[in-house]
Amino acid sequence: MAGSFPTSPMRKVIVAVRLPRELHEELGRVARIVGPEDDVEDAEALLCLNVDPGLLRRARGLRFIQVVTAGVDHLPWEHIPPGVVVSSNAGSNAAPVAEFAVALLLAAAKRILHFDRNMKGGVARPDVEVPVLSGSEVAVLGLGEIGRRVASMLSAMGMRVVGFSRRPKEGVPLHRFTTDLGDALSGQRYAVVALSLNKYTRGLLTYDVLSSMAEEGVLVNVARAEIVDREGIKRLLLERPRFVYATDVWWSRDDYSRDSDVIGLPNVIATPWVAGGYGSREVYMAMLRSAVENLARYLRGEQPRNIVPREDYV
Amino acid sequence: MAGSFPTSPMRKVIVAVRLPRELHEELGRVARIVGPEDDVEDAEALLCLNVDPGLLRRARGLRFIQVVTAGVDHLPWEHIPPGVVVSSNAGSNAAPVAEFAVALLLAAAKRILHFDRNMKGGVARPDVEVPVLSGSEVAVLGLGEIGRRVASMLSAMGMRVVGFSRRPKEGVPLHRFTTDLGDALSGQRYAVVALSLNKYTRGLLTYDVLSSMAEEGVLVNVARAEIVDREGIKRLLLERPRFVYATDVWWSRDDYSRDSDVIGLPNVIATPWVAGGYGSREVYMAMLRSAVENLARYLRGEQPRNIVPREDYV
Repeated sequence: MAGSFPTSPMRKVIVAVRLPRELHEELGRVARIVGPEDDVEDAEALLCLNVDPGLLRRARGLRFIQVVTAGVDHLPWEHIPPGVVVSSNAGSNAAPVAEFAVALLLAAAKRILHFDRNMKGGVARPDVEVPVLSGSEVAVLGLGEIGRRVASMLSAMGMRVVGFSRRPKEGVPLHRFTTDLGDALSGQRYAVVALSLNKYTRGLLTYDVLSSMAEEGVLVNVARAEIVDREGIKRLLLERPRFVYATDVWWSRDDYSRDSDVIGLPNVIATPWVAGGYGSREVYMAMLRSAVENLARYLRGEQPRNIVPREDYV
Repeated sequence: MAGSFPTSPMRKVIVAVRLPRELHEELGRVARIVGPEDDVEDAEALLCLNVDPGLLRRARGLRFIQVVTAGVDHLPWEHIPPGVVVSSNAGSNAAPVAEFAVALLLAAAKRILHFDRNMKGGVARPDVEVPVLSGSEVAVLGLGEIGRRVASMLSAMGMRVVGFSRRPKEGVPLHRFTTDLGDALSGQRYAVVALSLNKYTRGLLTYDVLSSMAEEGVLVNVARAEIVDREGIKRLLLERPRFVYATDVWWSRDDYSRDSDVIGLPNVIATPWVAGGYGSREVYMAMLRSAVENLARYLRGEQPRNIVPREDYV
């Protein structure tokens, strides 16, 4: 009788994030779920926001890590054995983050915050020109899911999108593509940073490359602060009062008081990392669902999505 | 010999706006240009921002008025003889105004000004949810050139556009069309006013109709303030601290101190009528060009565009 054979035990998965009941049950149907404090020696996969090196040392059977965040720059890569496959959650928050990027770009370009501040202070004089965006160029740096969506939305507004990434991408509505950052930014009035933070992009946007942008440039960042050189952008913002840096991401990550020198500049538009999952429970839940689905893909023996090229980080 | 016959004299046009030299010369090739202070009795057409009733009384031969503004609600309609054809400059500033509407909607929906104010005040806590726009409905009131463009841009962002106008319009990417204002706004979180101000739309957006919108609604106005009932919106904004009114247009027109009670509300985003020609010399020049081109169309005996139905105003 079939029942008398030992059944293959369900594969063990460490869940190091708080899952809503429904997702916990869904995952529980294809895996044995344990917590990070449980016996993890024979656990095969890990679902987490970040990877704890101590847990890695105990989970010696680990073969797959599914991260809930879209970016994986924060992982302790030097502690992750090369044989462990890591999947990011890229794209899971792309729609809201791309919308936020467009919101920052339009608010900055149309000087909405400037005018609102003046109106509330009793100054109604239109003291700066409001540019027409339709027909203008915009550089979109990074053509992952966020960059693609930003490019689509801005194209639909009649902007001519110059796309920059390491490799050409299919299906993005671009006016022009370049792998040369200087070519993408030189003379440009508008630019949106939608790159992954990795060893190639850390500090990529130096003072030199940014200062090639137009005098009244607008730089939007919804990716990671560290892509932009902190002292470089600060110098540029001090030199050019009409250049605007509109950013949702910060070098200090979660202690914004350490970035108050930049936040306080009049030509900075500052939001507290709310474009994606940290700004919306709905988005965070969608990210958890997407992560669990990809983990289930791995557990079913399928190829998981968003496998991170380790060489981008180590 | 042909030269001995009296040639038909060039038709006389009153130009009551300051034209750049190039446009003045262009118009001068097809008409005899006079100023409002000159002998205008036999002038056939008038190019103006507004119509001076005194001038109308002197220009008894007038048959055509080309207005430089897109809206014509400010004209002294009771002084304009029914036989005089009036053309507006509708559409001439549609691209920048539509962009501005989308900028206001996104800035309000994503709470950009709120977060920026908090960040600059040292408060970094994400204290309000940031909604996802993709997949959400938005009402676009008025499907002229501005409304069409707003609908296109928001559709490209994945929003489902509910279009409202008196008559169905072709070629607008709508999720749904309605001629019923209550149907368009009821339960709606987002709405953009892109209607002409005329006798049908003045005071159309009362407290009753606006209060049917969602509790955290966002109402954007780039059309004319008078479409929105002043006391109605003020009451709604006081009752619902999370409802946002983002507007570029004001009941006081040019003395914003008379609107300071509304401008000063924390849930109002206020800009000083800068979406179109008043905010940009480039846009104003394009409007002048468009107006001169339409006037030339009339002078060549062609049908001018944007003939205003007098019955909408009288």
